[in-house]
Amino acid sequence: MSFASKLLVDIHTHVYLPRYTALLRSRTSVPFIRTTSTPEGTPEDRLLILDHEPSGGRPVGAQYWDREEKLKFMDKHGIDVSIVSTANPWLDFLPAPQAQALAFELNEDLEQYCSTAPSPTSHKIKRLYGFGLLPLVPEITTSALVDIVHQIGKLPHLRGLIMGTRGIGKGLDDEALDPVWAAIEKAGLVVFLHPHYGVDVNAWGDKDNGHVLPLALGFPFETTTAATRLILSGIFDKFPSLRLLLAHSGGALPVLSSRLASCIDHDPIVASRLKHDARYYLGKLYLDAVAYGPEELGFASDVISRAHRYKTTSSVVKGAADRSIGSKRMLFGTDHPFFPPLSSTEKWKSVTENLEAIEAVQGWNQEDKDAVRGGNAVSLFKLENSDGPEIL
Amino acid sequence: MSFASKLLVDIHTHVYLPRYTALLRSRTSVPFIRTTSTPEGTPEDRLLILDHEPSGGRPVGAQYWDREEKLKFMDKHGIDVSIVSTANPWLDFLPAPQAQALAFELNEDLEQYCSTAPSPTSHKIKRLYGFGLLPLVPEITTSALVDIVHQIGKLPHLRGLIMGTRGIGKGLDDEALDPVWAAIEKAGLVVFLHPHYGVDVNAWGDKDNGHVLPLALGFPFETTTAATRLILSGIFDKFPSLRLLLAHSGGALPVLSSRLASCIDHDPIVASRLKHDARYYLGKLYLDAVAYGPEELGFASDVISRAHRYKTTSSVVKGAADRSIGSKRMLFGTDHPFFPPLSSTEKWKSVTENLEAIEAVQGWNQEDKDAVRGGNAVSLFKLENSDGPEIL
Repeated sequence: MSFASKLLVDIHTHVYLPRYTALLRSRTSVPFIRTTSTPEGTPEDRLLILDHEPSGGRPVGAQYWDREEKLKFMDKHGIDVSIVSTANPWLDFLPAPQAQALAFELNEDLEQYCSTAPSPTSHKIKRLYGFGLLPLVPEITTSALVDIVHQIGKLPHLRGLIMGTRGIGKGLDDEALDPVWAAIEKAGLVVFLHPHYGVDVNAWGDKDNGHVLPLALGFPFETTTAATRLILSGIFDKFPSLRLLLAHSGGALPVLSSRLASCIDHDPIVASRLKHDARYYLGKLYLDAVAYGPEELGFASDVISRAHRYKTTSSVVKGAADRSIGSKRMLFGTDHPFFPPLSSTEKWKSVTENLEAIEAVQGWNQEDKDAVRGGNAVSLFKLENSDGPEIL
Repeated sequence: MSFASKLLVDIHTHVYLPRYTALLRSRTSVPFIRTTSTPEGTPEDRLLILDHEPSGGRPVGAQYWDREEKLKFMDKHGIDVSIVSTANPWLDFLPAPQAQALAFELNEDLEQYCSTAPSPTSHKIKRLYGFGLLPLVPEITTSALVDIVHQIGKLPHLRGLIMGTRGIGKGLDDEALDPVWAAIEKAGLVVFLHPHYGVDVNAWGDKDNGHVLPLALGFPFETTTAATRLILSGIFDKFPSLRLLLAHSGGALPVLSSRLASCIDHDPIVASRLKHDARYYLGKLYLDAVAYGPEELGFASDVISRAHRYKTTSSVVKGAADRSIGSKRMLFGTDHPFFPPLSSTEKWKSVTENLEAIEAVQGWNQEDKDAVRGGNAVSLFKLENSDGPEIL
């Protein structure tokens, strides 16, 4: 067993780079950071990123922007490597020229954030890698997007890119993005699909449930919708080598995938568009292991494991699929610096419960669990290759 | 083993009673039925029930209102007993006085629909039972609602009531409904929670995906949101004997329940309101087995099975829960007459795949599967008791 196969790699961990944080501080409408006072009179930075932010936003501090805090967090939790991404809402709110310029700069910043970090001495894998950003905003040109894909592909510590669900205004199932997907596929970059907007806030009612409903439900609903629309658009028929990583274990997509297949079966327009049963395409996905429970992880793994059985049929396939198959496409993550502990503790519960959940999955052997904790990330992001992903 | 434990009981099967159909035909805005012509010139009834109905609505025929068609469908699929409910959108669109009067009449109609059906001769269980309706509309009085609960409780073939998610305008987590829940709990009636509105249509984008997105995703998102809001409102702490049956296997709630628990953990206002970890309350639910896949059913069963472990902890519990526990709260359903076959076939695929899915669940023994197919319904709806549910 190689050294790398025992690493703990966090693939869902966010940063607001200093350049981005300065932008948020300069703004007075969402998204922005404002400095207020606690009831005790202590100055406090609060982050507001949603139009209907509950609880007056959330307190933020150095863990959102300071690399030292990221490394301390990693040390505390035994995380060897982090693949860091800008947190939502990325560049969604900017006019195209500003978004394009800032994407370029932030990608360079993130490369530097990673490349200048202290590295473990015993092997060539660094401590920090990154997901770059695209200026996915209305009125951007396809060629500008493709240029940024090429920029990311050449930055050696950037191994993928993170994106929200709005594309250039019409969602990710917009054919105008086909050249972008083609460039991403060709560059061998991993797309980390992450939510921001949730669903219409009227769904949550008028009771004070804090951030619970938009975070627990709205986020996964948004990811589920975007990934489903991509599947319905035939993206995996068009770009079979595209590597799409879904946040929060794919949200509700795994549990709704047989229902989705059934609904497609009853809608000839959609059925005739796709080469395979919807469940087949779930085997093309990668899922983070940020689901907080062992049953959830095991089930998501089953849905990936069964996918190949639906290549040529849309009838129920009997017999258990080997749960280990799915484990090869699931990857540990923490969602740091979100979900901080309410009181100072040695470790963050949001992190330890994701680790405990991986350890407790029934039907995953030790090798499978090691793969989910880090081995899969080492392969997917080609961390043993110092030049970045191979070009296809 | 008793005869009743081998019955096939369909607990998710809809009807538009003739009185309700006449109302839909009399209307010219959603919801309504209009008679149009097919491209070949044949007259065709089309049902439009959503504000942004895709594909000009769906063709409807006698299977939506004719009891003979329901019985023929049952015979064709070997269904012994159906517990029939009015399909969405129920009475949601009516002014309070009309909704109240019509609820009363439709409940009497449904009792007659059931009581006058031919009955198998060899035992006292009838072929048809029903879920009644409440006039859950704005400006209805609580006492009017409670009166209708009492009406349903006294009608011997009605064993529960179906409801959407809007309550009397502010959702089901509205404290104004507390007396209604109390009356339902006392009457021993099962609440069948069923979606209608989905989520804001902007989520679906502008591609023509027919009914796929609102049905495959929007419906379960709505049920998930309503059930989660009920859990957050503390309904199961207030009404511990309330029997709540969720459509479509609870939608996304099972797969998001550990995420929900984690989000609650990080939001003290909500956490302090509830007596238990969110996952505990899932053990209070009943779920239909309308998920179209064996892995989905098995997972939903796991989530119910593990629930009792979270009574006193919110930390990850290791070790497999006995999947049989959950099987006792899952019940076969068909969603008839929706999802008809595209061409005439001996059996409906939407029905056979739900039966095949039950048969293929790993870790359910023969007794568990029989329970899901019918035994659970016999107990939950007290079908061997000719007078209806026992009063608590």
